[in-house]
Amino acid sequence: MHFAKALPLRSGASIRAYDLSFETYGQLNADKSNAVLICHALNASHHVAGVYLDKSGQILAKSEGWWDTMIGPGKPVDTEQFFVIGVNNLGSCFGSTGPMQTNPDTHEVYGADFPVVTVQDWVDAQARLLDALGIKTLAAVMGGSLGGMQALSWTLQYPQRVRHAIVVASAPNLTAENIAFNEVARRAIVTDPDFHGGHFYRHGVLPKRGLRIARMIGHITYLSDDVMNEKFGRRLRAPTLPAARGSLPPEGALRLRPGEAGSAAPAWERGDSSALAGAVPTLPAARASLAAPFKFSTQDVEFEIESYLRYQGDKFAEYFDANTYLLTTRALDYFDPASEFGGNLSRALAEASAGFLLVSFTTDWRFAPSRSREIVKALLDNQRDVSYAEIDAPHGHDAFLLDDPRYMGVVRSYFQSKVAP
Amino acid sequence: MHFAKALPLRSGASIRAYDLSFETYGQLNADKSNAVLICHALNASHHVAGVYLDKSGQILAKSEGWWDTMIGPGKPVDTEQFFVIGVNNLGSCFGSTGPMQTNPDTHEVYGADFPVVTVQDWVDAQARLLDALGIKTLAAVMGGSLGGMQALSWTLQYPQRVRHAIVVASAPNLTAENIAFNEVARRAIVTDPDFHGGHFYRHGVLPKRGLRIARMIGHITYLSDDVMNEKFGRRLRAPTLPAARGSLPPEGALRLRPGEAGSAAPAWERGDSSALAGAVPTLPAARASLAAPFKFSTQDVEFEIESYLRYQGDKFAEYFDANTYLLTTRALDYFDPASEFGGNLSRALAEASAGFLLVSFTTDWRFAPSRSREIVKALLDNQRDVSYAEIDAPHGHDAFLLDDPRYMGVVRSYFQSKVAP
Repeated sequence: MHFAKALPLRSGASIRAYDLSFETYGQLNADKSNAVLICHALNASHHVAGVYLDKSGQILAKSEGWWDTMIGPGKPVDTEQFFVIGVNNLGSCFGSTGPMQTNPDTHEVYGADFPVVTVQDWVDAQARLLDALGIKTLAAVMGGSLGGMQALSWTLQYPQRVRHAIVVASAPNLTAENIAFNEVARRAIVTDPDFHGGHFYRHGVLPKRGLRIARMIGHITYLSDDVMNEKFGRRLRAPTLPAARGSLPPEGALRLRPGEAGSAAPAWERGDSSALAGAVPTLPAARASLAAPFKFSTQDVEFEIESYLRYQGDKFAEYFDANTYLLTTRALDYFDPASEFGGNLSRALAEASAGFLLVSFTTDWRFAPSRSREIVKALLDNQRDVSYAEIDAPHGHDAFLLDDPRYMGVVRSYFQSKVAP
Repeated sequence: MHFAKALPLRSGASIRAYDLSFETYGQLNADKSNAVLICHALNASHHVAGVYLDKSGQILAKSEGWWDTMIGPGKPVDTEQFFVIGVNNLGSCFGSTGPMQTNPDTHEVYGADFPVVTVQDWVDAQARLLDALGIKTLAAVMGGSLGGMQALSWTLQYPQRVRHAIVVASAPNLTAENIAFNEVARRAIVTDPDFHGGHFYRHGVLPKRGLRIARMIGHITYLSDDVMNEKFGRRLRAPTLPAARGSLPPEGALRLRPGEAGSAAPAWERGDSSALAGAVPTLPAARASLAAPFKFSTQDVEFEIESYLRYQGDKFAEYFDANTYLLTTRALDYFDPASEFGGNLSRALAEASAGFLLVSFTTDWRFAPSRSREIVKALLDNQRDVSYAEIDAPHGHDAFLLDDPRYMGVVRSYFQSKVAP
C-alpha cells in the first residue's frame, strides 16, 4: 500500500512518501472487530503464515510464513475466526520502503541516508495501514522479541485501538549486554571495506563479510547453551563431506538487489530450526568421543558448530540488507518506554488499557523471563488484566518461533477465552 | 631461554628451535621444592607480578603484572616463601617464539606458517623450562581460564612433577557455545582483507578491523550481565566529551611490530577492570533516565557500553597479534582430556595424583561453576584430595583477575595449609 502523506519520525526527520508491504489471512468481519496485527522481529517480514505457490500451482519449497506454526486455519491464532494482518516494517528489505529503495528526493538509492526509525515510528506507520483498511480497533496486536516491543508500544501509543496485546519473548528495553551484542554486529558491518559508509549499492558490492559476522553473533544469542550442546556439542565435522564453505544456497536464490526487493521473505527463522535438525551432517556419537582426529588448522572447519554458524552467516549475507540490519538493531537499542518516566516502568504502562498475555521461555538468555516479569509487575501495579506463561523450553530465544505444545496451548486458550468476540 | 632441541607437537609438526620468555619472583630454596609455575590465559604473558622501572628508576605506569593482586611478597601466593615462575607460551606475541618472529627454516616471519600448538604442547615446553632451571617437582602449578587448563593438563602429563594444582575459573573442555564465540572472533580476523591469509606482515598491514571485533566479542563474554548493567546500564555517552574513537592510547605505546616483540606485556587484563572503574566518563544517573536525547545514528556512539567496547577493541588491535589470537583460541577449542577416554572425565583424571584447589565464580557464564564442579566430581571419583570454592562475585569471568577478599583468602589458605613445606 502506498502512503502519500509524509510520516513524521521520532528523530525529527520524516519520510515523504512510502510503501508498506502487507499480507492478510482470513476475513474481516462486518463490524471490523476481529483484526489481529502481527509485528515482526529483527529480520522477518509481513509473510507470517501460509505458503506461496509457483505458476503451476505447486507449493514453493521453504515458503512457509515465519509464524506458520502459530497462525492459520485451526491454529492458535485461528484465521477462520480472526482477520490476521502481517506488515513489513519501514526500513526493512522485504518490500516496504527501506534503504535499498530509491529516495524520491534524490533519485538515488537511500542507503545510509534512510532515516533512523524507532519502534514508535513503526507503530505509527502500522496505525495508518489500519486506517486505510478501515479498522479502528484491533482485537489483538501480537509479536515476539522486537515484535513484542511493538505490541507493547501499541498499547501505549494507541490505547483505545487495542483490546489485547500478546507479547512473547520480549523485554521493556535492552540491557547493556543486549546493546553490546548489537554494537559488535554493527561494527562488523560498518568496518567492512565493502560497506562504503552505507552507500555500497553505488559501488556494486555488498558488505557480506560484516553481515556474516553479525549473523553468527546473533545466532549464538538466539540459541541456549543447552540446545547447542545437545545439537552440536563438541562433535567434529565429518571429514569426508564437502566443505561447509561450499554449501551456500543456489546463487541468486535469495539474493535481493536494489530495486528488486521482493515480497517473498525467506522463512529464515523457522528455517533455522530445521537447519538445526537436518542441514548439518554429523558424525556418529561414538566417533566424536574417540581421541580427536583434528586437522590442526585455525581456519578450516573442525567442529559442527563452526560449520553451522558459517552456513547461517553465508545464507544471511546473501539476502539481508546491511543498512536494514543497522536500523533495526538501533530500533531495539532505543526502545525504552520507561525512559520518559524516570525509568519507572509502572508509570510508563499506566497508559495501557489492553488485556495482556506475556510469554517467556526459561532458557532464553537474550530476553530472559525476568524481563517479561518486569512488564507483568508494572501492569499489575496498574491493576491491568494480565496473563503470564513461563514456558520450560530448551531452545533459548528461538523457542518463540517453534512449535512447543504448551506454548501453543497457552496462546490458543488466550485467544479463545479472552480475545474471541 | 633458548631451546635448541626440536619440540614435537601434538599435530605431528615440530618446532626446530625456540625461545621462551619467563620471569621469576622470590628465591628457589636449597632442595628446589618451593617452585610455583603460573600459566597464562588468552592474551596475558610471563609478566605475572611486580612492576617495571624506567631508566631513572621510576615505576612505569600500568606495568603491573596481570596477577599482581595474587602474587608477591605477603600476597596469597607469597614470593617470600615461594619461587614463582611466569612463562610466556609458545605462539604468543610477548617474547616467546611465535608467528611474529622469523622462521629459521625460511628466514621469513612465520605468520600463518607457525604450527598450531595445543595445551599439551605448552605444558611440554614448560616442563623443558623447569628441566633447564633444575626443578624436578613443582610445589604447585596454577592458572585461571586457559591457564587453569594448563594446570590441569600438567597433573595428567607429568603427575610425578606436580604436588598441587590450582585451577581457577576453568573447564574440562569448551562447550559448543564457547567454541562458537571463538569461531566468530576467528572469522572476523580471517575475513579482514588486511589478514592476507595470515601473512599480513609481508604486506605491511595489520588486520585491525578483525582484531577489534574479536576483542569486543571476547569482552562481552568476560563480563557478567549484572556488572554490565551496574557499570553501564543504558547510560548514554556524554555528548560534550571527545569521541571514544579518538581515545586510543598514545600511538606506539603498546604497539608491537614483527621482530620487536618486547617482553613488557601490557597489563591488559587488570587494565580492563580499571577501565571499567574510570576510563569511560559517564553521565550523572539522573540525566540518563530523562527522555533520551539520542543522536538517531546507527554509526555514532550513543551508549556508554558502545564506547567502552570500542575503546577495548581499539586498544587490543594496537598490541595483539592476529595469528596468536587464532592459535590460542584453537588451543582452547582442542583441549579435552576426556576425549581419549570416551568422554569419561573421571577415567581421564585417574592419572592425576596432585592435590587440587578449584575456584569458580557464580556469575561467570563463560566457564560457569558447573564446569568446575565436573572436574571436582571426576577427581572425587578417583578419591583425590580436592578443595573447591565457589565465590559469589558479580564480575563474571573477569573475577579471576580481580581482588575479591574471599577469593584471595581461599588461595592464601590453600597455599599456607596445603602447599607450604
